[in-house]
Amino acid sequence: MTSYRLESDSFGQLKVPTDCYYGAQTARALINFPIGEEKPPRPLIRALGIVKKCAAQLNMDMGRLDKTIGQAIILAATEVIDGSLDKHFPLVVWQTGSGTQTNMNCNEVIANRAIETLNGTVGSKNLIHPNDHCNMGQSSNDTFPTAMHIAAAEEITHRLLPALQNLCNELHSKSKSFNHLVKIGRTHLQDATPLTLGQEFSGFSTQLDNAIRRAQAVLPALYQLAQGGTAVGTGLNSIKGFDIEFAKQVANITKLPFKAASNKFEALATHDAIVEASGALNTIAVSLMKIANDIRMLGSGPRCGIGEINLPENEPGSSIMPGKVNPTQCEALTMIAAQVMGNNVTISIAGSNGHFQLNVFKPVMIYNLLQSIRLLAEGCQSFTVRCIKGITANEGRISKLRDESLMLITALTPYIGYDNAAKIAKKAHQDGSSLLDAALALELVTTEQFKQWIVPENMIEPNNKPF
Amino acid sequence: MTSYRLESDSFGQLKVPTDCYYGAQTARALINFPIGEEKPPRPLIRALGIVKKCAAQLNMDMGRLDKTIGQAIILAATEVIDGSLDKHFPLVVWQTGSGTQTNMNCNEVIANRAIETLNGTVGSKNLIHPNDHCNMGQSSNDTFPTAMHIAAAEEITHRLLPALQNLCNELHSKSKSFNHLVKIGRTHLQDATPLTLGQEFSGFSTQLDNAIRRAQAVLPALYQLAQGGTAVGTGLNSIKGFDIEFAKQVANITKLPFKAASNKFEALATHDAIVEASGALNTIAVSLMKIANDIRMLGSGPRCGIGEINLPENEPGSSIMPGKVNPTQCEALTMIAAQVMGNNVTISIAGSNGHFQLNVFKPVMIYNLLQSIRLLAEGCQSFTVRCIKGITANEGRISKLRDESLMLITALTPYIGYDNAAKIAKKAHQDGSSLLDAALALELVTTEQFKQWIVPENMIEPNNKPF
Amino acid sequence: MTSYRLESDSFGQLKVPTDCYYGAQTARALINFPIGEEKPPRPLIRALGIVKKCAAQLNMDMGRLDKTIGQAIILAATEVIDGSLDKHFPLVVWQTGSGTQTNMNCNEVIANRAIETLNGTVGSKNLIHPNDHCNMGQSSNDTFPTAMHIAAAEEITHRLLPALQNLCNELHSKSKSFNHLVKIGRTHLQDATPLTLGQEFSGFSTQLDNAIRRAQAVLPALYQLAQGGTAVGTGLNSIKGFDIEFAKQVANITKLPFKAASNKFEALATHDAIVEASGALNTIAVSLMKIANDIRMLGSGPRCGIGEINLPENEPGSSIMPGKVNPTQCEALTMIAAQVMGNNVTISIAGSNGHFQLNVFKPVMIYNLLQSIRLLAEGCQSFTVRCIKGITANEGRISKLRDESLMLITALTPYIGYDNAAKIAKKAHQDGSSLLDAALALELVTTEQFKQWIVPENMIEPNNKPF
Amino acid sequence: MTSYRLESDSFGQLKVPTDCYYGAQTARALINFPIGEEKPPRPLIRALGIVKKCAAQLNMDMGRLDKTIGQAIILAATEVIDGSLDKHFPLVVWQTGSGTQTNMNCNEVIANRAIETLNGTVGSKNLIHPNDHCNMGQSSNDTFPTAMHIAAAEEITHRLLPALQNLCNELHSKSKSFNHLVKIGRTHLQDATPLTLGQEFSGFSTQLDNAIRRAQAVLPALYQLAQGGTAVGTGLNSIKGFDIEFAKQVANITKLPFKAASNKFEALATHDAIVEASGALNTIAVSLMKIANDIRMLGSGPRCGIGEINLPENEPGSSIMPGKVNPTQCEALTMIAAQVMGNNVTISIAGSNGHFQLNVFKPVMIYNLLQSIRLLAEGCQSFTVRCIKGITANEGRISKLRDESLMLITALTPYIGYDNAAKIAKKAHQDGSSLLDAALALELVTTEQFKQWIVPENMIEPNNKPF
Repeated sequence: MTSYRLESDSFGQLKVPTDCYYGAQTARALINFPIGEEKPPRPLIRALGIVKKCAAQLNMDMGRLDKTIGQAIILAATEVIDGSLDKHFPLVVWQTGSGTQTNMNCNEVIANRAIETLNGTVGSKNLIHPNDHCNMGQSSNDTFPTAMHIAAAEEITHRLLPALQNLCNELHSKSKSFNHLVKIGRTHLQDATPLTLGQEFSGFSTQLDNAIRRAQAVLPALYQLAQGGTAVGTGLNSIKGFDIEFAKQVANITKLPFKAASNKFEALATHDAIVEASGALNTIAVSLMKIANDIRMLGSGPRCGIGEINLPENEPGSSIMPGKVNPTQCEALTMIAAQVMGNNVTISIAGSNGHFQLNVFKPVMIYNLLQSIRLLAEGCQSFTVRCIKGITANEGRISKLRDESLMLITALTPYIGYDNAAKIAKKAHQDGSSLLDAALALELVTTEQFKQWIVPENMIEPNNKPF
Repeated sequence: MTSYRLESDSFGQLKVPTDCYYGAQTARALINFPIGEEKPPRPLIRALGIVKKCAAQLNMDMGRLDKTIGQAIILAATEVIDGSLDKHFPLVVWQTGSGTQTNMNCNEVIANRAIETLNGTVGSKNLIHPNDHCNMGQSSNDTFPTAMHIAAAEEITHRLLPALQNLCNELHSKSKSFNHLVKIGRTHLQDATPLTLGQEFSGFSTQLDNAIRRAQAVLPALYQLAQGGTAVGTGLNSIKGFDIEFAKQVANITKLPFKAASNKFEALATHDAIVEASGALNTIAVSLMKIANDIRMLGSGPRCGIGEINLPENEPGSSIMPGKVNPTQCEALTMIAAQVMGNNVTISIAGSNGHFQLNVFKPVMIYNLLQSIRLLAEGCQSFTVRCIKGITANEGRISKLRDESLMLITALTPYIGYDNAAKIAKKAHQDGSSLLDAALALELVTTEQFKQWIVPENMIEPNNKPF
Repeated sequence: MTSYRLESDSFGQLKVPTDCYYGAQTARALINFPIGEEKPPRPLIRALGIVKKCAAQLNMDMGRLDKTIGQAIILAATEVIDGSLDKHFPLVVWQTGSGTQTNMNCNEVIANRAIETLNGTVGSKNLIHPNDHCNMGQSSNDTFPTAMHIAAAEEITHRLLPALQNLCNELHSKSKSFNHLVKIGRTHLQDATPLTLGQEFSGFSTQLDNAIRRAQAVLPALYQLAQGGTAVGTGLNSIKGFDIEFAKQVANITKLPFKAASNKFEALATHDAIVEASGALNTIAVSLMKIANDIRMLGSGPRCGIGEINLPENEPGSSIMPGKVNPTQCEALTMIAAQVMGNNVTISIAGSNGHFQLNVFKPVMIYNLLQSIRLLAEGCQSFTVRCIKGITANEGRISKLRDESLMLITALTPYIGYDNAAKIAKKAHQDGSSLLDAALALELVTTEQFKQWIVPENMIEPNNKPF
Repeated sequence: MTSYRLESDSFGQLKVPTDCYYGAQTARALINFPIGEEKPPRPLIRALGIVKKCAAQLNMDMGRLDKTIGQAIILAATEVIDGSLDKHFPLVVWQTGSGTQTNMNCNEVIANRAIETLNGTVGSKNLIHPNDHCNMGQSSNDTFPTAMHIAAAEEITHRLLPALQNLCNELHSKSKSFNHLVKIGRTHLQDATPLTLGQEFSGFSTQLDNAIRRAQAVLPALYQLAQGGTAVGTGLNSIKGFDIEFAKQVANITKLPFKAASNKFEALATHDAIVEASGALNTIAVSLMKIANDIRMLGSGPRCGIGEINLPENEPGSSIMPGKVNPTQCEALTMIAAQVMGNNVTISIAGSNGHFQLNVFKPVMIYNLLQSIRLLAEGCQSFTVRCIKGITANEGRISKLRDESLMLITALTPYIGYDNAAKIAKKAHQDGSSLLDAALALELVTTEQFKQWIVPENMIEPNNKPF
């Protein structure tokens, strides 16, 4: 049986489970927002802990927060940062658009946990007050967006970028190892002139090079922190210089170059930086959709598709059809791409709907952004390890398709002229014969000439000089 | 310490926690898809249980499934339906695009739980085999989309429609109670001719009437079940008539008029019915965004906004500013609207990317659809109970704004002509004076005439006859 | 050299080209909105003409509009309807969000053209006044949304539905003609059990059946007309019953069952019906993307793709590669699908941003909706005539792929057991041999048995009875 | 009566209007793609002209193109660049996804115009051949994406960036001129602590600073040109170094730092750079939606809204209501924002659907991107000139709202304590009285103290030091 303690806010008393550090405002929010089950993600809770820790340190340094209280807050905030208090954050995303309830949840958890470490009575608000001490000099309106930026920047840096780099490296490695394999090219899904499988993969690795650049490019805007703007951006009740010192503290903890936002009004009323970040993720999703689609089409078969590459077998396909490998990692990744592209619309709509001094779509924006980051990162990592790394070339299939292709005829044009080359191709197409057989039947080249002139390996780069 | 048993699939042995009913394929999927934390929602697991139950019943009826085995499967499937086995479904959305792993997860859980009820050895696949018995005559390719439709139809019927109806009723009720309050109209955000607050709310309730119609209209397509199409839609390994009998069973359990899809190829290869359903949710989200935005703007203030209505106070706003009520329910609902609009893009992209006989974006599509349904339902319910129900009219403010408005001058036109009326309005605007003062200053009407002719209550409907 | 006449509005005088029927307000809007080049589409101008014609007729019938004036207006409106005055509508979409400028453009054109027919002085506003006569009893706020609905309903009825029906018929016809061709199925892009090419096409034609249903389903909401709501929905300055009589007139002219919107507040302040219609178009676009993608993949090759069908050759592909047919109609159609899916987002965002008594995103909403309708209609028509109609089956390729496929082994299971069947498939896959050769090498069946038992034609439907 | 000449392509003869420079392939495309009316925008045609000019120059320099022919081509290409041949480009966007028809249209127009300047027979393909000479060393597959990048970069540079800069400057200028006006802040649409109107506008101008940065940031990826990749990216039939020299020529003509794409496979098969660019435009649209929404809400009224600013009157609002200024420029701009946000989805979907060596959604991608750029640019320019520039502060209204606001009570807290301050605010709210009256009634402060302590001007920045 759950036991409860009584806590109160200005609306009256509420029962709070005894084993929870959260307090009355969180308990009231649980009643007021019984909507869905999506919760502010871990990186955001961690970031709120960082905010509280840095603010407490700074408030102590400035002499406005008692050291004992301050140290207890820092200790509790450190536990919020490391995740050990996560179960005390029960609220959902679908709450006040400023994230006030989650900010208060954090204040309450830290206050009660800090009270506990000082041997006070949890829930008493004695010794340490969630508002007066934990939220000192802060407002949800600057705290929450600050945590949004910290969380997004940390996740992009520590989760997404390494995953993109791994995928890029693996694609680059495959590109090198496949560079000798000349294969048919395809445009409009139709046979075209040849390229190497390595060249094909180099297109993918270049997409990842760009993905990395795009992810990095959004960081500077995320490094700008709203903290110090308080309720409407003016910094009322804050202190001159607090914003700059605060950002230094955050930079120190996170080892990322955060700094005070140059304009706090923009930083509270808009989340253009989050929209910008989501735009980069959207482009990355678009890139991954192309890559995963190509990989699964190149691996289609085993006999009735294209079948130029073999994908690693990760799980039983059909028990009756050996050789059937479902491209499950591609499927997971393309589903993720679709999710990220939709999330970008959610974030854009939310970002466009700010009013006056505050955008009140903060929780939905950061929920979607962090989901996109995590899914892209973990999707890429799994795709790298369980798909790309294990890809092998089906060399027999590659050369068979290439050699049967009609477009190699292009190489004869300089020797026998366009019209004669076209005659050969047409005849081969009509007869279903090889180009060589058609050429010989038309008595336009000898076997020796054909083999000398039609060399796919010579068709994969520009000429050294004009004809 | 967790203890494990050894299970195997065709790829080899795997450790499975002893206290879990799932088996080797689920355990392997846990290894292969360490991506995100989004799981197939409860209604989908329930729906899979319904599929397994109906299939087992039918297979028994057709004489191809042993009664003892069949009854044990039905018992276990019933537990899947009621949710008591939910913790045995650990997989994430980001898996094979056919949902095969989740289908196998369900087969394994039912098999092991059924084995247990028959006093067999869990994990042995003796007595009851996840594929041979639980998946008998089925394929993931028809089972999973069948579960998608059942889940979506149940959630729309039992969760969304009642919530929409409640909101509609409450808006209608408010409309009636506000019908005597004549207020200023606003077009282009600018003052316009008057209407009643009740008329304004009738626009909202009509939107909800339509929302209900839209949600209902997508049900017939969802009632069509893919079951019986097996792997590619032909029904290979199924039996003629199985599809029709199966749908009857599902209809019987769910009390919803499910029936066999007329074309199974369409039902596996596309999820147009899911896209159609999401389109309706998108339109509903658009409606709710408008309503919630209007409500919070009408309630803006308390002194420096529009302030025509009072929103219920649900939680402490600012401790220093009594009268400040943050429209938190509006904010939760508009965030939900943004989410649903983005989900619609995800679902549309996913739906457009099917290939040949199978669309392999099934898990992401149903995840987003069920999220949209639930958020809309619970968001509307909370909005109804905690916002709309408690709204009161600020009658003083309404009449003050109305009476100060310049547009009432319209009513003088028939008596003193357009040009004279315009003169009065212009003067009042320039002087910041009332229309009456301006009219008297210009000596165009008497006070008595003014009061007789300018009656806002007469400006809220068409004339009875031509002038 | 252009010659000008002087016209004036309440802001002063403006030069209007002598050969133009539009007047001062249009000329001023040309100055104020020099943005882009997208214009209100023809069907909207036509619909505005219908509104003006019906309103004039009704105003005459009600005795508040002089018959001479009314008849002249009707004459001019008829010319607006038939398109002969289109060049007098120079304004762009990017104007007032209520479409006021385009409504005034229409009033001015009709007034001046009507004046001309009465031998008055164009631009004089004598005899016939754009506001007093052409806009009598109307407001842009009810006129423009009325025209939106008329235009959308007419275009869906007369343009989209026939095109969808043609495509559906052609797909159905292909399905029937291909019904004897048993081919390999593909799930996850991997070889699977067989189906007929006709069955594959039946999936497409079922999608079109549903597309037609979806397009039809949005019509009832579009049939509801805002006319009679005037400025804010109350109908001020209109007359009781005007709305109903007006809708009858429109129904009479268009032969479509238009009726007065039951709630005018909803009809002005929201465009949920437009969002709903766009949602159906979005679903149709999703369907077409799937179909066009499948068609071009099935037609890929000629030698290094799937190549099961031949697409008609419409234009020179590459001059050097006979047999290369670029699937250009598929490409046009998939580009259209992407456009329509994006337009749906534009329309949804626009629809969600109404304020109070008016949604002021009207022009962008109808512009996108009519673009989507027209592109889908003309894209489908071209795709039907220039692609689907000319498709032929590449029967040799179809049977070759089918017969080489390993999944036919499924048919042996009832006779030699699952394990033996799997052995054959595995050996064939490893050796690259045929199933027959592998089966004979393993001495598991005779050639006669193999040919008797493995009959793809028997694998394309459910069994008649349980095994 | 139109007269025709006969031209032919490999499919046979076609009639081409005598007064048109385009040839058989364009005429055939007109027959094959009767879809919609959207045409490749002017900047793209210009860019194609640049490509043809640079290629001809380079081919002459390399000695593979006869000088007379080359000079004639350059002359004709120059006319394509300057727009004087625009009427000879009749094709729509909805064609081959590689833009082949538009590339051939350009080749045909240049060839025939060049033939004409050499006194040859238009349509003869004598002297100058559209493929052999105008398309020498090129493929649609590298030419069209090259033109896409040139067009996008030029439009962003010459059209969008100046417009954003103008808007930014004007917002900054307003911010400075409004910096002394202390007004009520609003969060959650509710009254909050004060800020200056200048601070509020500084949030807008910061958004524009960032918009400019975002638009600039996409240029480097657009500067990379695909030219030299020819059909599949290998550069077959091109010459080593052609790509680099070509980019130099383009840079020379455009004065923009174009260079050869480092990986041509990526440059043909994907358009991630276009998606990236659209993502920036989407973020800019989001910013503009916020700004335009705030502007029109701040200007709402004249009497029943917020009314803190006056928007310039550009056209007659209602003829009866002086002072009613519809925020038409805001409405045009927010409609544009919705369009750009939807276009971003179209572009993203299109970008995600490339296959193998070619993305075949090129025309729809560049059509949407150029539309977005132009609408944003011209929308911003109009918004700057016709809205922002003319905004004036309604100082009386600003100070009235500010002084009535209850939140000024915050300033009393340090002197009389939180509880007493709250009592005053509560009483004022209940009584509808001023804070001063409530404070005096409660005998908590004197009038002198009140006026000394409550100074809104002191509430718009952080404190100089801790309390």
